[in-house]
Amino acid sequence: MAKRVYDRVILGIDPGLANTGWGIISQKGSQLRCLAYGCITTPAAIPLPERLGKIHNQLQAVIERFQPEFVGIETVWFGKNITAAFATGQARGAALVACSHSHLDLAEFSPRQIKLAVVGSGSAEKEQVQYMVSHLLQLDHVPHPDHAADALAAAICYTTIGPLNSYTQ
Amino acid sequence: MAKRVYDRVILGIDPGLANTGWGIISQKGSQLRCLAYGCITTPAAIPLPERLGKIHNQLQAVIERFQPEFVGIETVWFGKNITAAFATGQARGAALVACSHSHLDLAEFSPRQIKLAVVGSGSAEKEQVQYMVSHLLQLDHVPHPDHAADALAAAICYTTIGPLNSYTQ
Repeated sequence: MAKRVYDRVILGIDPGLANTGWGIISQKGSQLRCLAYGCITTPAAIPLPERLGKIHNQLQAVIERFQPEFVGIETVWFGKNITAAFATGQARGAALVACSHSHLDLAEFSPRQIKLAVVGSGSAEKEQVQYMVSHLLQLDHVPHPDHAADALAAAICYTTIGPLNSYTQ
Repeated sequence: MAKRVYDRVILGIDPGLANTGWGIISQKGSQLRCLAYGCITTPAAIPLPERLGKIHNQLQAVIERFQPEFVGIETVWFGKNITAAFATGQARGAALVACSHSHLDLAEFSPRQIKLAVVGSGSAEKEQVQYMVSHLLQLDHVPHPDHAADALAAAICYTTIGPLNSYTQ
């Protein structure tokens, strides 16, 4: 068996029906590294089960390849937008089923917690978060699209806060 | 290969994070029959991915056993309850991933469409719907719990309306 070179591998997810961002980072002591990131896009024209199936299957493939043990996810505040909450809820459900197959430990973070962990300020701007994601992971570019950067930010948050949150519904 | 005795087999789902009702009916001409129904219950105390994984896995087992080709599901109106919309959205996402593996054709119905199809009145009471579900499927009892009866009602609705609805998000 190959020697384990990382202390832990963490998956971050930014779920959405049209775009689900994902990012895989490794942590060895205080050293963070980006292993991979991407975005699963599903066109509105294809049937809903197929869209959700694609999110599930592609995320499952990512999990099988990088074998993370932990997953960080942002808990989004929808204001009064029921339609967005329902659509994102469905995508999140599909994504978390993929995590359930490999028994990943889930931690959920508020947008404020993520900003605080990544930038040091709970009211940081989106651009500041993206810059710090790139800096902390020693990337020479800002991860694109935003969904992937947001997913990586959730994974970074996991390394500083960990699974402190209780499971929410 | 066994001779196919039904014209079609339809799955109805009433998704919910705590309780996901399901029902399988067969249609041969105008004759409907209930093949099975049940309710997948997930305790709030277990981690969210595990709850969603259970909904997905148990529904997948039902689909593998009865091999429906069609699925009817109710599109619930949440009023202003964002939390309920998000929780139900996640359960629905997990359920529809199970449907995606077998490429089931999905139709979504409003509560009014289901009442109209089952009772003949879009403003029918819950008890009337349950009575008619039992009557139309020639059961000698009202299916219990309500989630299972609601799932069977969605499946019955499929037989009268079919996949007329466009896919919603």
